[in-house]
Amino acid sequence: MNAEIIAIGSELLTATRVDTNSLYLTEQLNSIGIEVELKTVVGDNEHRLEQLLREAVKRSEIVIATGGLGPTEDDVTKKVVSRVVKKQLVLEQRILERIQARFHNRGLEMPANNARQALVLLGSKILENPVGTAPGLWIEYEGCHILLLPGPPRELKVVFEEACKPRLAELSAGTRLFTQVFKATGLTESKLDEMIAPIYTPYKNPATTILAAAGEIHVHLTGKGKSEEEARKVVTEVADRIEFALGDFVFSRGEETLEQIVGYYLMMRQMTLAVAESCTGGLVSQRLTSVPGSSNYFLCGVTCYSNASKIELAGIPPLLLEMSGAVSLEVAKGLAEGIRMKTGATIGLGITGIAGPSGGSVSKPVGLVHVALALDGVTEHQEHRFGGDRDRIRLWASQAALDMVRRKLI
Amino acid sequence: MNAEIIAIGSELLTATRVDTNSLYLTEQLNSIGIEVELKTVVGDNEHRLEQLLREAVKRSEIVIATGGLGPTEDDVTKKVVSRVVKKQLVLEQRILERIQARFHNRGLEMPANNARQALVLLGSKILENPVGTAPGLWIEYEGCHILLLPGPPRELKVVFEEACKPRLAELSAGTRLFTQVFKATGLTESKLDEMIAPIYTPYKNPATTILAAAGEIHVHLTGKGKSEEEARKVVTEVADRIEFALGDFVFSRGEETLEQIVGYYLMMRQMTLAVAESCTGGLVSQRLTSVPGSSNYFLCGVTCYSNASKIELAGIPPLLLEMSGAVSLEVAKGLAEGIRMKTGATIGLGITGIAGPSGGSVSKPVGLVHVALALDGVTEHQEHRFGGDRDRIRLWASQAALDMVRRKLI
Repeated sequence: MNAEIIAIGSELLTATRVDTNSLYLTEQLNSIGIEVELKTVVGDNEHRLEQLLREAVKRSEIVIATGGLGPTEDDVTKKVVSRVVKKQLVLEQRILERIQARFHNRGLEMPANNARQALVLLGSKILENPVGTAPGLWIEYEGCHILLLPGPPRELKVVFEEACKPRLAELSAGTRLFTQVFKATGLTESKLDEMIAPIYTPYKNPATTILAAAGEIHVHLTGKGKSEEEARKVVTEVADRIEFALGDFVFSRGEETLEQIVGYYLMMRQMTLAVAESCTGGLVSQRLTSVPGSSNYFLCGVTCYSNASKIELAGIPPLLLEMSGAVSLEVAKGLAEGIRMKTGATIGLGITGIAGPSGGSVSKPVGLVHVALALDGVTEHQEHRFGGDRDRIRLWASQAALDMVRRKLI
Repeated sequence: MNAEIIAIGSELLTATRVDTNSLYLTEQLNSIGIEVELKTVVGDNEHRLEQLLREAVKRSEIVIATGGLGPTEDDVTKKVVSRVVKKQLVLEQRILERIQARFHNRGLEMPANNARQALVLLGSKILENPVGTAPGLWIEYEGCHILLLPGPPRELKVVFEEACKPRLAELSAGTRLFTQVFKATGLTESKLDEMIAPIYTPYKNPATTILAAAGEIHVHLTGKGKSEEEARKVVTEVADRIEFALGDFVFSRGEETLEQIVGYYLMMRQMTLAVAESCTGGLVSQRLTSVPGSSNYFLCGVTCYSNASKIELAGIPPLLLEMSGAVSLEVAKGLAEGIRMKTGATIGLGITGIAGPSGGSVSKPVGLVHVALALDGVTEHQEHRFGGDRDRIRLWASQAALDMVRRKLI
């Protein structure tokens, strides 16, 4: 079955608010095999909403509308749905009494406006709301299930879980979804696609999505089956081949970040790490220490921006700085070796480069980054040229440095 | 004029991703008097997208579609729009060459797939993308302006601001919105609202929105008028009183981040800064160095996670660590003074605390953070107790440390 979600409320059309209810609903719906194919946000605008609902009931089997069930003038959901499905709104005495009681229990008189919340569509099923005044409604119209749910997240969750989910699960019996994620780094999106398109294109099930995130690429495989086992089997068949094709570009088969994976390897091997970074400005340290428990393997980081601090904190010889320049293979190696020596860490990592926007030259352009890794008396080195602005260059440089550690420890 | 925004990409229909491009676009469109009346998210599904676009061009004057312009099989935007507006896709040699050059400059061969990104709709205006491979397109169809923009936020912003905004502003001449933003830190959202609600509540124009962001609170005042001057006047009347009421809690009257403001003050006073941080793990350094030109005032940072590194890199006496513990007023002061001494910076900043989730005790609970600032032989100190998870505690601690510098330099 397919579903669409309509979030109603003018505040959701401002520059500062996003609809997060739909994330919760998507998770819940997916878990019972229902796919969300469309999400819309519309303001408290009767005309727009009516137009939209008329289209929605034609194209989707399930339409979930959230919000607009409040007591004020601009809460128009029920009025509009009443026109679309051609059913009258009638006052439900039982609900009115419950709302009055809620106010009474708090020592308040019910404002007259709240009586609107006791209006229900003739022929609809009332979805009880034990934590708020507005109940939800479920009505069928020309083969489409329309669910009207309250907007406040807490109320939405209770109403959905108690009054909607079991019935939806029955409706969608016989379909289940399973998703496998791969995260890869060290190659471009198009390069990755070239490597795996021959594998996934013949399949409609599972569906494959490729997504470029910051410094990494995510591959999502979603399979459909009559049971979770069947859906999982559908995915595994393709996933195994994709994983093999991508080899060690894949750093995670789940939700783990690159810094978490690096942390696992360091703990597994009982190694420690220290970082001396220049162009990344503390980003590598910050990412590594964002992982709880990182104090087990992360000893320290230095952000040596000035030349003096490269000499003082990472032990770079002044002459080397003068001869090779701060952004050089030699200084990257010196940072890695120096911080390893100073701290006694198993691995020393050094990063130097030009993040821009200024400071570049013909021989050393913005985006040039040297990364070095010192371990057991051997220091390895990589040279990168990243495109984009300062933030992007710093991010990709941090990604390259972390990935260098990962590849060393695989 | 009215606009609708369509975000394209199956990943935006999962339970973990939201479309944030539309927030940026809404802000930009509002600033030139265009209101967003509808937002939709649709997957990489040709049939759904086609259906949706056909409806969109009928109901809206401006349709902005984001995403689906990438090089892979599942990027279907141009193909579908081509059917809807009945215009062929043709290869634009000039764009192809630019894409090839981008790869070439990074020492890579262009994968064959990327040639798709040089396909344009016959009769469309090409929206140059100086920061990525996919250009945007602008095409008119039956009185509707259809704008196709790349999905990566960085690319979207450049393409929109340079190639779309000026022309849209001309189209919508006659209504103008003006927005004034205040950013404040060091107080809670409800406290701030208490201070300014009596000022803004009597006004419908400007509209006031209060938004709690990470470690700070943003106040948006948006006024409407026939000209920008009129809209600006409507805002200024209320904004001046709000700014006065909030006093030095306000750190920015525009888009500047706290780290930018700190940077301005340091440059203005020709001072330098060095940071020794523990619980924030490099976050303070990373934020400071995210600002272009920060090498003018930021000398270095050390992330001293291990006790040995606190001794070695920040000069903390071993006895002090033993007596006071790593998380203490004394160690925070020692870090600030030590890093200042070691580097010769005008200001030394020290941060130590417990970010959690483990490591807390009754007397030193998770969320306890000490911040110290050393300047001219005087060291000041603050003790904070932050709530929330590891990420939140680290962020608030970095915010407190940066704000301590700002308040010192005001």
